[in-house]
Amino acid sequence: MTVETLSSAACHGGCQSFHSHASASTGTVMKFGVFTPPGDGPFPVLWCLAGLTCNEETFAIKAGAQRLAAELGLMLVTPDTSPRGEGVADDPAWDMGQGAGFYLDATQAPWAPHFAMESWIIGELPGVIGAHFPADMERQSIMGHSMGGHGALVLALRHPGRFRSVSAFAPIVAPTAVPWGQKALPAYLGDDPAAWAAHDACALIAGGARVAELLVDQGLADNFLDAQLQPERLAAACAAAGIALTLRRHDGYDHGYWFIQSFVGDHLRWHGARL
Amino acid sequence: MTVETLSSAACHGGCQSFHSHASASTGTVMKFGVFTPPGDGPFPVLWCLAGLTCNEETFAIKAGAQRLAAELGLMLVTPDTSPRGEGVADDPAWDMGQGAGFYLDATQAPWAPHFAMESWIIGELPGVIGAHFPADMERQSIMGHSMGGHGALVLALRHPGRFRSVSAFAPIVAPTAVPWGQKALPAYLGDDPAAWAAHDACALIAGGARVAELLVDQGLADNFLDAQLQPERLAAACAAAGIALTLRRHDGYDHGYWFIQSFVGDHLRWHGARL
Repeated sequence: MTVETLSSAACHGGCQSFHSHASASTGTVMKFGVFTPPGDGPFPVLWCLAGLTCNEETFAIKAGAQRLAAELGLMLVTPDTSPRGEGVADDPAWDMGQGAGFYLDATQAPWAPHFAMESWIIGELPGVIGAHFPADMERQSIMGHSMGGHGALVLALRHPGRFRSVSAFAPIVAPTAVPWGQKALPAYLGDDPAAWAAHDACALIAGGARVAELLVDQGLADNFLDAQLQPERLAAACAAAGIALTLRRHDGYDHGYWFIQSFVGDHLRWHGARL
Repeated sequence: MTVETLSSAACHGGCQSFHSHASASTGTVMKFGVFTPPGDGPFPVLWCLAGLTCNEETFAIKAGAQRLAAELGLMLVTPDTSPRGEGVADDPAWDMGQGAGFYLDATQAPWAPHFAMESWIIGELPGVIGAHFPADMERQSIMGHSMGGHGALVLALRHPGRFRSVSAFAPIVAPTAVPWGQKALPAYLGDDPAAWAAHDACALIAGGARVAELLVDQGLADNFLDAQLQPERLAAACAAAGIALTLRRHDGYDHGYWFIQSFVGDHLRWHGARL
């Protein structure tokens, strides 16, 4: 389990570094970023999952989360959003293939050999983080943006007890009901609707999966709001299930990182209080 | 004086936008970013000049300055670092030509027709900002990083009274004495050493130019520290001239934006207190 350090820089008294390792889950070299707060640790870990077209650098560079993570003593882990490389299947569209792993294990050709994001993030990468960084893996939380918000919600719902808290910015909450998911889930998982529902936050909740509470921020000037995001579906699912959802709608904010950086502090404090 | 809006997004209760205009100074379309804090204004303006290879987005995306600028009521203006485009001279090296304007007006071919960054930033762009944004142009300060630190220091020294305060991260303080400047200044300005000295902060101070005080942060793990930056030259020039220099050296920090974001809050507060 060798971890290569691609770069490392002092940041807010701690360290922002980027790494790669040969992943057994994906059969590729996978990249991830780590912000280690100042001090000796061990530190609780906040997973930060990025959206379509993004990679391990996006959240680290654009979200402006390190300052407060340093203050709160949180380690931030930012995984890449898919396997990559010449031998890895891809699609010319920006919402399929490389950069669009949807945080699941694909079962269908040509994706199955390498697209194993759930296995990587849930099964393999925590061991890497625990072994190579001053992390307290008994204390993990997860957040994400857009496709990464989908990832945060679904991974928390599918792996109860793993994460102490969950939050999302502009998440895809019901991929089986919107075009992004209706394209990606059949491509990655085949034609069985039950397989799709197992990766749909609203369907998981309707099927009995639970988290105690959720924090979700959504911009009302988000171009993807009506067609792809539809947070009212999550509100309805949580209301029916008795999940305490804090859904904040923000006038004027769009889908991007200018929105995320405006409210990321609230998410860090939310997770910090629960870690 | 038409200003085109390339993008605009809500951010920390204010607005981060990017624009272009047809510049009479450079004879090209020039780009710049503006962060407008929440409220009606008019707001004091903090110019943020970026370094080699950077553009109008770099500081805006990577420095993490908007949160505190919103709180302090500061407008941030981030100009591109050179003219660009097909008809503009360039150099295959990353430290000359497009992306490397050195904040001066070139007098030499092939640069002279378009490389007029000092005229743009001092003479033209303030009028654009004043006319199109809720800016109080009677209250301006300037900061910069690396080549942009050079720009902040030199423009403030060459235009006394324009800026109420000046600060820099890892600035080039004596370009006539280091390789970056020894390459760029003759190329842009010809073979007269007096022309070079007029764009060298230490030489300007030695020649009698003054600012009241300076704040400079320098990382001690900066790869360019010994060969290109040499802040001790600025310390000596300020000591001889009676300029109050606050020069902070930071163990472990490198030349990049992980360093800048760690201390940018101190710079914003420094300027905010003087604006």
